[in-house]
Amino acid sequence: GEVPSAVIDDPFEKDPTRDARMLMHTEKPCNAEPPGEVLNEFLTPNELFFVRNHLWVPDVSDPEEHEVTIVTFDGDEVTFTVRELRQIFKEHSVTAVLQCSGNRRSHMSKQGGDTQGLPWDVGAIGNAKWTGVLLRDVLREVGLDVNEPPEDVQHVQFLGSEAYGASIPIDKAVDRRGDVLLVYQMNDQPLPKDHGAPLRVLVPGHVAARSVKWVKKIILSDEESQSQWQQRDYKCFGPNIKNDPDWSSAPAIQEMPVQSAVTAVRSSGSKISKGADRTNVISTHDADSERTILEGYAFSGGGRTIVRVDVSTDGGRTWDQAELLASPSQGSKSWCWQRWQYSVPAGAVGEGFLVKAVDEAYNTQPEGYGPNWNFRGNLTCGWQRVPANKPEEPQGR
Amino acid sequence: GEVPSAVIDDPFEKDPTRDARMLMHTEKPCNAEPPGEVLNEFLTPNELFFVRNHLWVPDVSDPEEHEVTIVTFDGDEVTFTVRELRQIFKEHSVTAVLQCSGNRRSHMSKQGGDTQGLPWDVGAIGNAKWTGVLLRDVLREVGLDVNEPPEDVQHVQFLGSEAYGASIPIDKAVDRRGDVLLVYQMNDQPLPKDHGAPLRVLVPGHVAARSVKWVKKIILSDEESQSQWQQRDYKCFGPNIKNDPDWSSAPAIQEMPVQSAVTAVRSSGSKISKGADRTNVISTHDADSERTILEGYAFSGGGRTIVRVDVSTDGGRTWDQAELLASPSQGSKSWCWQRWQYSVPAGAVGEGFLVKAVDEAYNTQPEGYGPNWNFRGNLTCGWQRVPANKPEEPQGR
Ligand SMILES: [Mo]
Ligand SMILES: [Mo]
Repeated sequence: GEVPSAVIDDPFEKDPTRDARMLMHTEKPCNAEPPGEVLNEFLTPNELFFVRNHLWVPDVSDPEEHEVTIVTFDGDEVTFTVRELRQIFKEHSVTAVLQCSGNRRSHMSKQGGDTQGLPWDVGAIGNAKWTGVLLRDVLREVGLDVNEPPEDVQHVQFLGSEAYGASIPIDKAVDRRGDVLLVYQMNDQPLPKDHGAPLRVLVPGHVAARSVKWVKKIILSDEESQSQWQQRDYKCFGPNIKNDPDWSSAPAIQEMPVQSAVTAVRSSGSKISKGADRTNVISTHDADSERTILEGYAFSGGGRTIVRVDVSTDGGRTWDQAELLASPSQGSKSWCWQRWQYSVPAGAVGEGFLVKAVDEAYNTQPEGYGPNWNFRGNLTCGWQRVPANKPEEPQGR
Repeated sequence: GEVPSAVIDDPFEKDPTRDARMLMHTEKPCNAEPPGEVLNEFLTPNELFFVRNHLWVPDVSDPEEHEVTIVTFDGDEVTFTVRELRQIFKEHSVTAVLQCSGNRRSHMSKQGGDTQGLPWDVGAIGNAKWTGVLLRDVLREVGLDVNEPPEDVQHVQFLGSEAYGASIPIDKAVDRRGDVLLVYQMNDQPLPKDHGAPLRVLVPGHVAARSVKWVKKIILSDEESQSQWQQRDYKCFGPNIKNDPDWSSAPAIQEMPVQSAVTAVRSSGSKISKGADRTNVISTHDADSERTILEGYAFSGGGRTIVRVDVSTDGGRTWDQAELLASPSQGSKSWCWQRWQYSVPAGAVGEGFLVKAVDEAYNTQPEGYGPNWNFRGNLTCGWQRVPANKPEEPQGR
């Protein structure tokens, strides 16, 4: 957590340049999300993947020589460079969503009342192919019995080079189907600076706040991380708690609830072409067969599969199922999002769209925002309501 | 599944006598639930635990000599008597809920539209201490690598002596924290006939339909049970599917969603005493300090802990938290229900009560019944609505 004295005037000096298409919520630290239409792809491009930094981006001069130290429960330390991790352990790839606990917070603020935090739209989520080594393998190498961890070891704490810290339960870390990785590649490219280069944790199915970036220390402990991000910020309280809660009364968010969102509403009769000035030109034709097409994602925590996405065009009186699109993914469980599509004759849109998803435990999303409001605006997952009269307007702004 | 020829006229001849306090939905097969107030205890008494039989109760003359056969993926068969199971394997006890997928179905039928199935109230659920041996240990004994099961073995099928069958995923069966048991004791007593004597499966966190009673065969397989109870009955479909669904389009229910229910509404000013004729006499005193007290349970599948129970007395505009009562339980995860209590001045009950629970993945219950209606009435978990004007009337009828 020490700021190099040379950059004391601006610890953010080494932050990378961001893609101009990103919607910047704050610049220092960088918090930015892509435009909604980017989220229509199964894999989110690296340069358009949401950035949620709590502090500055650490400067790592030689990525292969970056060190991560494992602290065992006895206090022994074992250090690996990224080069050594690659050499010693088998490489694994996992396709997984990372979702900020603040994703869709602006929807809760608008429909349930003001919240504290960045006003994310539907883009504080992304899906990527992550490549690295299994934390389970690394812990086994330093002497942990990964099939039967000792009672003393209850949590694995992660410390980032910039000072951020968080932890996960040991059972997730050693689960042979947990797929927790130490990652050095994202979508087959070197991990970008904003996403934790040269080494980050990936905890699939858990809130992104546990997938610590720029990881330099991994500690086996009988207690959770004592960081504010574990003990305070990433929790939810009842709708009656307006501020100053008993922080210890709620658990740190780990696995996430069922979620879904709309990423595009478009007309089947529209063709998008480049105009002379390179702006998009939308021309409509064949009004009779015109259909309104809705696209989006659904996702649940803990690797739980999405089994159904329901869409209503009459305010929730009747429902139909969206088409679930193929999801070519890697991993022991359903860590990736479920892309979906729904189309209706353009004249039949009625009162606009409502969308809700169901996961394999048959959990579903709450209807409203008020009864699930929490003052930090975390884990917003009320049904998304999309008005009928804006078919050409991309969602997410 | 063969009916003994001697009892061909009535295969139910060997069914046990049931407690007179049970509400009998059907007698042959027996489907019965206890009155709501029984559910106020942390452990449900054996004779008042809901009975959900699909067929008759098999007659087992010598419980200790009852045999269960394990069929390995290679087709080898290994048979154990109950006596041998006790002798060979370490005994384990787990406190766990069993909940029928039809629990609270009558609430869905009333508020969301007619459904097919028994009209259970809030009592098709119970919590007990179960004692037996770990299925994981038994599978290890017959040669399965429980830490790394082969790819071919995807499911464990259970067959009951009466013909019922169902299956669970192998990963639940071998999970070192899955606590799947072969049970011969319930609440420290011999397992009752209606609950599977002499041997039943307990799959904590999963719908009760997978905890096969009177188990006689356990089959390691690459496919699910092909029984109607796995392939058809215990699934949920969208609210638009009125009948005749594509059964293969929904997964068999395994882990259950977040649930909560009210089991009693009473006045703090009331004292319950035995009258001369041994009926209950309720006398009210001290009207000024009188409070209305609400009691109930909350529960989530997959061993997920209940972290909060929210109560509203004004139709959902404002909320408060119920007190979560201590739950002395045994097991690797939160398999038991969370008892809760909430009290308000009797004059402040307003529009009655609404209750909803939140689990550790911050999943919550849906508000309504219509948008989550399914034609089989499975997994009803809309917010329970309790009218204000019936404080002395026990819930559950
Ligand atoms: Mo976050
Ligand atoms: Mo059931």
